[in-house]
Amino acid sequence: MSLVIVGTVAFDAIETPFGKTDKIVGGAATFAGLSASYLYDKVKLVSVIGEDFGDNINIIKSRGIDVEGVEVVKGGKSFFWSGKYHNDMNSRDTLITELNVLADFDPKIPISYQDCEYLLLGNLTPLVQLHTLERLQNKPKLVVLDTMNFWMDVALEDLKKVLQKVDVLTINDEEARQLSGEYSLVRAADKILAMGPRYLIIKKGEHGALLFGDGQIFSAPALPLADVFDPTGAGDTFAGGFIGYLAKVKSINFSNMKNAIIYGSAMASFCVEKFGTERLQNLQQEEIADRIQQFVALSKFEIAR
Amino acid sequence: MSLVIVGTVAFDAIETPFGKTDKIVGGAATFAGLSASYLYDKVKLVSVIGEDFGDNINIIKSRGIDVEGVEVVKGGKSFFWSGKYHNDMNSRDTLITELNVLADFDPKIPISYQDCEYLLLGNLTPLVQLHTLERLQNKPKLVVLDTMNFWMDVALEDLKKVLQKVDVLTINDEEARQLSGEYSLVRAADKILAMGPRYLIIKKGEHGALLFGDGQIFSAPALPLADVFDPTGAGDTFAGGFIGYLAKVKSINFSNMKNAIIYGSAMASFCVEKFGTERLQNLQQEEIADRIQQFVALSKFEIAR
Repeated sequence: MSLVIVGTVAFDAIETPFGKTDKIVGGAATFAGLSASYLYDKVKLVSVIGEDFGDNINIIKSRGIDVEGVEVVKGGKSFFWSGKYHNDMNSRDTLITELNVLADFDPKIPISYQDCEYLLLGNLTPLVQLHTLERLQNKPKLVVLDTMNFWMDVALEDLKKVLQKVDVLTINDEEARQLSGEYSLVRAADKILAMGPRYLIIKKGEHGALLFGDGQIFSAPALPLADVFDPTGAGDTFAGGFIGYLAKVKSINFSNMKNAIIYGSAMASFCVEKFGTERLQNLQQEEIADRIQQFVALSKFEIAR
Repeated sequence: MSLVIVGTVAFDAIETPFGKTDKIVGGAATFAGLSASYLYDKVKLVSVIGEDFGDNINIIKSRGIDVEGVEVVKGGKSFFWSGKYHNDMNSRDTLITELNVLADFDPKIPISYQDCEYLLLGNLTPLVQLHTLERLQNKPKLVVLDTMNFWMDVALEDLKKVLQKVDVLTINDEEARQLSGEYSLVRAADKILAMGPRYLIIKKGEHGALLFGDGQIFSAPALPLADVFDPTGAGDTFAGGFIGYLAKVKSINFSNMKNAIIYGSAMASFCVEKFGTERLQNLQQEEIADRIQQFVALSKFEIAR
């Protein structure tokens, strides 16, 4: 039984008001995989990299993550993204996007991955997400899909096909509005849940996240932070922590989904404390437990009925 | 012992995507007073109106609110505001502002109000807020101040003087950033608390509210709503519910402040369901209790330590 994560493993170059990096390791599957690895011990990645990635793969392997499904294209170059964040850290400009080996990505599922019970389809073209699902011999117990506005613009019909086959969709508030054509997030959620997923998570960055499903709503806080050093990968880290927690507890219900969102939020709060994956490489379980308790303290109140 | 609320009692004309009103009753003290009246039974208003307000005052009096401190200017016209909300309901254009009798407002504190234990200084010029404080013979047990960006622009020094004399400040996130010069709300809160108030509430509209103070942070959710009919007065309704709850429970600590924010948020969630004060005129205690339980369900999660 395993948790399979499909997504990019890549290089990023990032500029924030706090500083600037050269090419460092990034990618949705990298962040999600590292995050999940603190909660569940059978995490397996499906991705594609170029030969230039070299020893950087050890950042992932050293967390015990299986990379058999990470194809290495000989002579190829890895996906590269470069971006610059504005002072408010909520908006950014993309400076460079080089698809490189990602342009022809055709996900290969090793036989050893066919025990997949939990599947995270990271932000990729909807067709690649669909192909991954088709190549699994058994339907996973839980499929979580991440996507973005870009695919709503250029591949909406494919995206709608994938949506019919997933259990949980994670998008941000603007994307929920775009996908549904509704401004109210309650109305947006109704329409999106009618497209297929049983649960919808709306990520609101510094304002936390909302979970819709089973006729219920859960509002999770974000941890107020003095400094957000680098927000890159926070959404992927959230998704990895979310599905990692559910893989660990093995039972899918609204109550566990709520806790999974808190775990995802806690992991994301670490991610933004340093550039790239740095903070996610050497976390201690005790730090995670303390952070979870900060979320409890942040949102707990007691009113007698 | 009483709760005194100082602020505008006025006429509004409102246009939202859902419809349009003629002149209806509005004003910060009206919304705050109606809201507080469901939680505490000795609510007293200080304000000024014109003779044109007429029988409209009964909307306030019929909730058992004392209006001895509401001065009626003979031949005067009441403060009038007209605004139009954009489709997202988060931004609005002011169409008309007629100060009328508010231009020369000099708050009169009736002798019967000198038992004031809880004081809400609604959004007004900082000098009027300061004069009110000076005219109370005894320092109230709790002073809550509401203000806005406009006073930071035109009367910052006066505002800073009032801040030194209050216990709780309520502002929105943009105002917190403006007042502190800090983007991070955690850093903003540190600077603002150093200006005088013991507690800071940052209102984030549809994203809820944050409470800072006593070295702690509380994040309160907002109730996700299918329709926001008219947001006018929601902030004042929040403030009224907040201080009304504290007047009821009579004990000021972080735990009660958290509950007070939930009560304020619940009252505000009613306010936006109809135009103006309509929804706040005939609420049932049972409806309020049910709404509070919705907030509990919305934010509760249980993770074993």
